[in-house]
Amino acid sequence: MSIKPIEYRDGVVRMIDQRLLPTQELWLEYRDYQAVAEAILTMVVRGAPAIGVAAAYGAALGARDIEADSFESFLAALKNVCDTLAATRPTAVNLFWALERMQAKARELAALPLDAIKAALMDEAQAIAAQDDAINRAMGRHGAELIADNARVLTHCNAGALATGGYGTALGVIRAAVESGKKISVLADETRPFLQGSRLTAWELHKDGIPVTLICDNMAGALMRQGEIDCVIVGADRIAANGDVANKIGTYSVAVLAKEHGLPFYVAAPLSTIDLKIPDGDHIPIEERDTSEVTHCGPTRLAPEGINVRNPAFDVTPAGLITAIITERGVVRGDYVRGLANLF
Amino acid sequence: MSIKPIEYRDGVVRMIDQRLLPTQELWLEYRDYQAVAEAILTMVVRGAPAIGVAAAYGAALGARDIEADSFESFLAALKNVCDTLAATRPTAVNLFWALERMQAKARELAALPLDAIKAALMDEAQAIAAQDDAINRAMGRHGAELIADNARVLTHCNAGALATGGYGTALGVIRAAVESGKKISVLADETRPFLQGSRLTAWELHKDGIPVTLICDNMAGALMRQGEIDCVIVGADRIAANGDVANKIGTYSVAVLAKEHGLPFYVAAPLSTIDLKIPDGDHIPIEERDTSEVTHCGPTRLAPEGINVRNPAFDVTPAGLITAIITERGVVRGDYVRGLANLF
Repeated sequence: MSIKPIEYRDGVVRMIDQRLLPTQELWLEYRDYQAVAEAILTMVVRGAPAIGVAAAYGAALGARDIEADSFESFLAALKNVCDTLAATRPTAVNLFWALERMQAKARELAALPLDAIKAALMDEAQAIAAQDDAINRAMGRHGAELIADNARVLTHCNAGALATGGYGTALGVIRAAVESGKKISVLADETRPFLQGSRLTAWELHKDGIPVTLICDNMAGALMRQGEIDCVIVGADRIAANGDVANKIGTYSVAVLAKEHGLPFYVAAPLSTIDLKIPDGDHIPIEERDTSEVTHCGPTRLAPEGINVRNPAFDVTPAGLITAIITERGVVRGDYVRGLANLF
Repeated sequence: MSIKPIEYRDGVVRMIDQRLLPTQELWLEYRDYQAVAEAILTMVVRGAPAIGVAAAYGAALGARDIEADSFESFLAALKNVCDTLAATRPTAVNLFWALERMQAKARELAALPLDAIKAALMDEAQAIAAQDDAINRAMGRHGAELIADNARVLTHCNAGALATGGYGTALGVIRAAVESGKKISVLADETRPFLQGSRLTAWELHKDGIPVTLICDNMAGALMRQGEIDCVIVGADRIAANGDVANKIGTYSVAVLAKEHGLPFYVAAPLSTIDLKIPDGDHIPIEERDTSEVTHCGPTRLAPEGINVRNPAFDVTPAGLITAIITERGVVRGDYVRGLANLF
């Protein structure tokens, strides 16, 4: 039973603070949309699908608190709420997808009383969360067939239960392979600088009893060369119409290394991560985060003061390096332009 | 004026504690060979040429304290000293090279009184240290010609003054290029898990006024793809007769990425790093270090308890990925078997 990182009950959104894992399991409570926006910005919650779920709850909380005397002024206020939530992180498209879905739902219900619309928006956020779990399980069923028995699977960052409404995208495929009776072991890149691999992936797989071996990002190539990795599976933050994939920084390097060693490189992501409006990866905005993530680790300063530091949070893996993209509606290979468009 | 990490005066070896940089500049004093062995093992001093220099001083301190009534018993005791020093770290061949040179010197002076041999061994250790600096400067002159003006040079780990008797191998080439009037900027991989890039390379380049930008190891590929890196230069811990290079873990991945992007990948190393007795990289012993280096950063635990962890300290880059090997006797390209053998 994998963890659900976001819960809703009685007007309160609860999220496990992913910054404190694995040493502390602290649940924080959110009662307004500003606090949810802050949680996304500061990475209490992270992972493209989870950000989408959190944003949907944020929009529902924001809608609930709007005082308006007409549908038009309600909708304008809801747009302000959604703009605040949207301004937190630029790369994962699920954020914008969820906020657009919430506003579309409001427009659809224009004829209803505002209280009914507000209630329906909270229902919609809960539906997005519930659907995300079902989507991950469908993705898992499709993807599990690609993973051989006894496979040693490398993953990068955390595309697990913690990155979604529960179950996971890349780790959902691994969970589904395990549930189908296959013996799978996972190698987890620690994923500097935020260490989603060591802190989150290792934690949730170990909790589920799936064998996991932690490595530093720079060890994956050497282990591939020694024949200790059979395939790679990662999640995605945004997939362009041509199949280029933006995902956690370092994904591109892993994809190049997989190609060099003839290993399959799979991406698992829901349709809400696919952005057909963007023709290719060069058009995906890449967030640069604060340099302190690189120069510090907890209270420890790792680097001298006064130097330059780069901290791009994502990179783009061109479609040509991707063996297949696993979605809830099936597996796409080869002609991604047609294959991805046909999913919708 | 680059730092010299190892100094000798009046019977005492002083080394800067490289575990505490960049936040503390603490010099530790060593008065016997056991303490020097411990310093190598625990990485107070690291970097293949610096380990060689430290081991030479350790052997000289050990020799000084031997109480023997014949040359044969002195030589046997010196062998014990050297065996202790040799048992610290398996990969960098400079360690064994320096210890063999010290014992060869003793054998050469067999006819002298023991006190004269002991004094000569301390002179020999100082000669190894002084020659290392001269060797690095010669390597720098040869290598600087390969680095274009305005080049943006990626390096991995620390192959700088701190890794040598002073000046550096890979960073020595960069220093020489700067001294020849070229405008060079350096990208430094942080180099998990021991963070030699962020802690040491960034520190010593910044101290020297050479522009340095720190990145996480997993960012190099994305920056290459964006055209932000012109070439790569690294040091080596051991070079086999066929040109395969053992160096800090992650070097192999960088070499694969350089090939993918058509970038030159240079290795700078002195002849004392070349091990003609070893036919290829598969025969180089690779140290696996304590897993706590990966699971912790300072006092901060990064990963859950109970998981598996790998921590190979080095990897092997096959000769085919190496554009040239820069030594103090010139630059070797292409046929490494012949080119390396011809250096001796």
